[in-house]
Amino acid sequence: MRLFGYWRSTATWRVRIALGLKRVAVEQVALDLRLGEQRARDYLARNPQGLVPALELEDGTLLTQSLAIIDYLEERFPEPALLPGDAVARARVRAFAQVIACDVHPIQNLKILNRVRDLGGDPQAWARTVIADGLSACETLLQGQNGPFAFGDAPSLADVLLVPQLANARRFGVPLDWPRINAVEAACNALPAFQAARPEMQADADA
Amino acid sequence: MRLFGYWRSTATWRVRIALGLKRVAVEQVALDLRLGEQRARDYLARNPQGLVPALELEDGTLLTQSLAIIDYLEERFPEPALLPGDAVARARVRAFAQVIACDVHPIQNLKILNRVRDLGGDPQAWARTVIADGLSACETLLQGQNGPFAFGDAPSLADVLLVPQLANARRFGVPLDWPRINAVEAACNALPAFQAARPEMQADADA
Repeated sequence: MRLFGYWRSTATWRVRIALGLKRVAVEQVALDLRLGEQRARDYLARNPQGLVPALELEDGTLLTQSLAIIDYLEERFPEPALLPGDAVARARVRAFAQVIACDVHPIQNLKILNRVRDLGGDPQAWARTVIADGLSACETLLQGQNGPFAFGDAPSLADVLLVPQLANARRFGVPLDWPRINAVEAACNALPAFQAARPEMQADADA
Repeated sequence: MRLFGYWRSTATWRVRIALGLKRVAVEQVALDLRLGEQRARDYLARNPQGLVPALELEDGTLLTQSLAIIDYLEERFPEPALLPGDAVARARVRAFAQVIACDVHPIQNLKILNRVRDLGGDPQAWARTVIADGLSACETLLQGQNGPFAFGDAPSLADVLLVPQLANARRFGVPLDWPRINAVEAACNALPAFQAARPEMQADADA
């Protein structure tokens, strides 16, 4: 399999963590978003959104959207599981992940922040508000959870989404004063799969 | 079960369609978003994002985030299935749904459009751009699909997400010149589950 991505792409980072946790090796194909390589005609023909990540399967099929890719990996490589076995617990983990994937990350990505700048707004302030609102809700969703990870004793889809989003939070200067979130991040960062997935560890990272 | 929602909420609409297709009856609890009822303390304590929809289970558990709720319904009430049986086909349907759920809808919801207005921007123009970009990608994702529905002979999660988003597209004046999308919408609108889920059919709808 080949993973089309970019070292600084938060959504690609999620997929790298999931692959690492499941110990699935893939070839990484870097698309430099600063050069617009994701808008190249041959890539756009296969991924009409022109986004990363995309996972190319052995037969050439291209899967898009990070959460859909991770669901695919979860089905094909079930161990270790990134979703709990109980349906209600699974719904909770998915909801936590979707707070970040739907209500935080897409509203503070580069494309949107450029539009905010074009309107004369402050992109940093816009991003800070969006991220703080979302992570504040995430902290509340983690209340009553006692495991070292977001939902239990092992990392789940929730942790996979949370850690890259925290990097964005720091980048935009969001005060990280959420004790449960901080404890979860520390637990994740102790794991090799999370360490290896970090942007600065990627082959295409800036020196 | 009780569904907390609002007649005009696109995300609630998705859940109504899924419930209808699966012939699952729930009590509907209307929260008037114009009056801020979703920010009431008792609701916010259970759903820290203060959003609709939320699905309350028989034991009082509250599930949030429309896609997570639909995944739960899919697991608990597997027939008729909203996801195909094949893992790759499932990933395609999920990705299509996530284009709308992650990259379109949250960027054109009321909260964001109010921020755009506060910056002196044109909320309608902002929404039109976001929706047109997303649906244009969706139309491309549907190329090569031949069923009356988005992905095959029966409605799937893709159709559940698409139909409410098309209502938003019309509301903001997006030209709907996508033949595959239009044909899929017509097929969906012929089904009672899609008809009954429409905003104007809800008990809390404006007269």
